[in-house]
Amino acid sequence: MRALWLENQQLQFRKDLPLPKLEKGDVMIQPRLSGICSTDLELVNGYYPFIGIPGHEFVGEVVEAPGFPDFAGKRVVGEINITCGYCIHCQQGRASHCINRTALGISGRNGVFADYFTLPAKNLHIVPDSVSDEQAVFTEPLAAALEIQEQVNISPTDSVLVVGAGRLGQLVAQTISLNDCDLTVVARYPKQRKLLEKRGIKVVDENNIAPGMMDIVVDTTGSPSGFETARAAVRSKGTIVMKSTYAGTLEINASSLVVDEITLIGSRCGPFGPALKLIEDHLVDPVSLVEESFHITDSIAAINKAGESGVLKVLLTY
Amino acid sequence: MRALWLENQQLQFRKDLPLPKLEKGDVMIQPRLSGICSTDLELVNGYYPFIGIPGHEFVGEVVEAPGFPDFAGKRVVGEINITCGYCIHCQQGRASHCINRTALGISGRNGVFADYFTLPAKNLHIVPDSVSDEQAVFTEPLAAALEIQEQVNISPTDSVLVVGAGRLGQLVAQTISLNDCDLTVVARYPKQRKLLEKRGIKVVDENNIAPGMMDIVVDTTGSPSGFETARAAVRSKGTIVMKSTYAGTLEINASSLVVDEITLIGSRCGPFGPALKLIEDHLVDPVSLVEESFHITDSIAAINKAGESGVLKVLLTY
Repeated sequence: MRALWLENQQLQFRKDLPLPKLEKGDVMIQPRLSGICSTDLELVNGYYPFIGIPGHEFVGEVVEAPGFPDFAGKRVVGEINITCGYCIHCQQGRASHCINRTALGISGRNGVFADYFTLPAKNLHIVPDSVSDEQAVFTEPLAAALEIQEQVNISPTDSVLVVGAGRLGQLVAQTISLNDCDLTVVARYPKQRKLLEKRGIKVVDENNIAPGMMDIVVDTTGSPSGFETARAAVRSKGTIVMKSTYAGTLEINASSLVVDEITLIGSRCGPFGPALKLIEDHLVDPVSLVEESFHITDSIAAINKAGESGVLKVLLTY
Repeated sequence: MRALWLENQQLQFRKDLPLPKLEKGDVMIQPRLSGICSTDLELVNGYYPFIGIPGHEFVGEVVEAPGFPDFAGKRVVGEINITCGYCIHCQQGRASHCINRTALGISGRNGVFADYFTLPAKNLHIVPDSVSDEQAVFTEPLAAALEIQEQVNISPTDSVLVVGAGRLGQLVAQTISLNDCDLTVVARYPKQRKLLEKRGIKVVDENNIAPGMMDIVVDTTGSPSGFETARAAVRSKGTIVMKSTYAGTLEINASSLVVDEITLIGSRCGPFGPALKLIEDHLVDPVSLVEESFHITDSIAAINKAGESGVLKVLLTY
């Protein structure tokens, strides 16, 4: 089959890969559309060791589902952590932290930038007919955005700052804006600003933020300068959510976190059900983030495009 | 009057200092007993710039209280943050983070290692007769230990690790042990271990901690190696409370905090009322931590003693 192959930070579009083998509990999926995420770019940049087929944001069709007739032929999205079910995290309701997990297209399991891939049936969510492929492909990053609200209670009296208005920042901003809190977003590019303003979301320049006034700050940048902006903006006893991984280590003035009693929260994968529901109910508009679509045969160009500054969501068609 | 004076990291015992002047709202206090805290040692080590009289843990007698007759002649302990009452933090119930604050013997205000000092009457708590001076002098650090439970909900099913069993770690351990959670303390010195075991608290060697199993970890060490121990011990989606300031910056692998969705919480000053109540009700035993008492005239020797490895609480008499 055809697939994008990553090895030693080199991407290769190959046509000679064998079809994936179905393990017990798995179904075979043919992707209809997939999305390129910053994590994919980080894999290419070698921040995480991974050899294989990247890609984890998808909407696809179940083409083989032995033992799972309810899924056969269905349009699905899927959770990206493949979990054991019996470790302490699985048993205590933190399955996305399964000690024995692999992650679709990220760690220990081939991903979706291919003609076919497999995923356990238990990871799947059937996409309602009213939700388009272009909407559904955003379920995974939208779920990640919603994870913030699983971790932090955002109330109407809270002032919330989102640092970064890229593909993840936009979804974070859209989901947080549903809370009627006092939301502001740090956006660098005119296109980013326009998208936010169209939804009535306040935008601020990164050099124009009052220090120490925000109850909650979400850093979606994954950059030390983004963290610095977040740290300067948060009030004493406030909360910083780190919503994106950082390249390398981060030097943190831990004493000032103690003195100011700041809470730092790392945030990763989130709930698919609520994400699909928000899309179905038209409470978010992820499709406006689509920058460009490339055919899978042009997936290397697509990855390069996604790596350009200020570029929002790049999709792959099949 | 006599006082310990700190300037350019040099300590001097002086007898020529003027009596403090009473500002509006203040009372004059003659300390009966004071305690040496790691923050005092950090001031001496130059981690924070401070010129003046250090010391902030005290029990004392109010010797002048113009306008506050209820406090005249009373035995008191006192909150160490002197606050403005009108800034955003004061108005929103976070007075210990007052933007205009000074801190007794730490920042902008002379402290208690002196014959006399002043404090606003609003900072005072009258010590019940049944509470001895030796007990009352621990109110401030005990309140700091209790701050953890203002910030983190500790339930009976939680496994909690306290890293460090020094003067602060012991109080943290004693207060957390009141929750019937599964508490373990990392203790380095036999004396520390004995004190904990006498209270039925489990002790573990720092090299013998199962990785990634603790729901909540409190780092009381203020050292990068203590933080490393805490980070290794906490489970995914768990919480690390940073209960002590760190010298310099701390290199943190922020990506791993994101991937493991760890929560880091800085923790500083806490509630005096509950601290006094715990002492009054004999639910904690701070006096067992007293290592040695020195007269104020020997305060330099006292500071040196408090700086030795494994030394618990050093007190000053007057």
